[in-house]
Amino acid sequence: MMAIGGAGLAATLPGEAAEAKAGAGAATVPAKVLHHVFFWLKDAGSTADRDRLIAGLRTLAAIPVIRALHIGVPADTEARDVVDGSYQVSELMFFDTVADQKAYQDHPIHRQFVADCEKLWRKVVVYDTLGV
Amino acid sequence: MMAIGGAGLAATLPGEAAEAKAGAGAATVPAKVLHHVFFWLKDAGSTADRDRLIAGLRTLAAIPVIRALHIGVPADTEARDVVDGSYQVSELMFFDTVADQKAYQDHPIHRQFVADCEKLWRKVVVYDTLGV
Repeated sequence: MMAIGGAGLAATLPGEAAEAKAGAGAATVPAKVLHHVFFWLKDAGSTADRDRLIAGLRTLAAIPVIRALHIGVPADTEARDVVDGSYQVSELMFFDTVADQKAYQDHPIHRQFVADCEKLWRKVVVYDTLGV
Repeated sequence: MMAIGGAGLAATLPGEAAEAKAGAGAATVPAKVLHHVFFWLKDAGSTADRDRLIAGLRTLAAIPVIRALHIGVPADTEARDVVDGSYQVSELMFFDTVADQKAYQDHPIHRQFVADCEKLWRKVVVYDTLGV
């Protein structure tokens, strides 16, 4: 287990972490800036629309500043009041810096994704987070 | 850039990803199940309470089923309507399986963290996500 800035663990830079810890069997967090987006579809029950959105999200992987990408759907964890599993699709990206996140936002591939897919969703919630 | 299940990229298992890709300079997503928690403090302006919560979260790193941990605060990205930067602290964990996430939930270190720190927050929102 590797934690960025974890107690008793040396803080690591993203690139260093991936290289220093792999091979020892420890997983690493790819980079310090997270961009986590949750999508609620207009047609929440449409698997076709869900898959169209997922396909659109996969095109974003070509944007170089993205250090890692995780596309997901709600996991079948225990139902609890605090767990929001009402979204249909999510995207988590890692960036090295806030400037890289901005470069992604403005990248033509990202703009094309929005133009192609924004008709599919009714609501988007974004959390941008800096590792401490 | 490595994407789990990304178009044109081989899907990878978490452990394999970390070992196979590091050294080639590509970052990897540590595991398939994400558990992302956002905390709103009762005293939102208290850096002491924020730091107390962060210290509590760091103790969770000792729980073996956690494949990677990212503790964060809102990043200074562009202000947009869809971005929720109103929380004070976040925790992102990676697990290999939903069963591991449940084991974490029930782990004594996690229970101790909740007992020690729940007085600090007024609201928690959790997103559990399975990579596709």
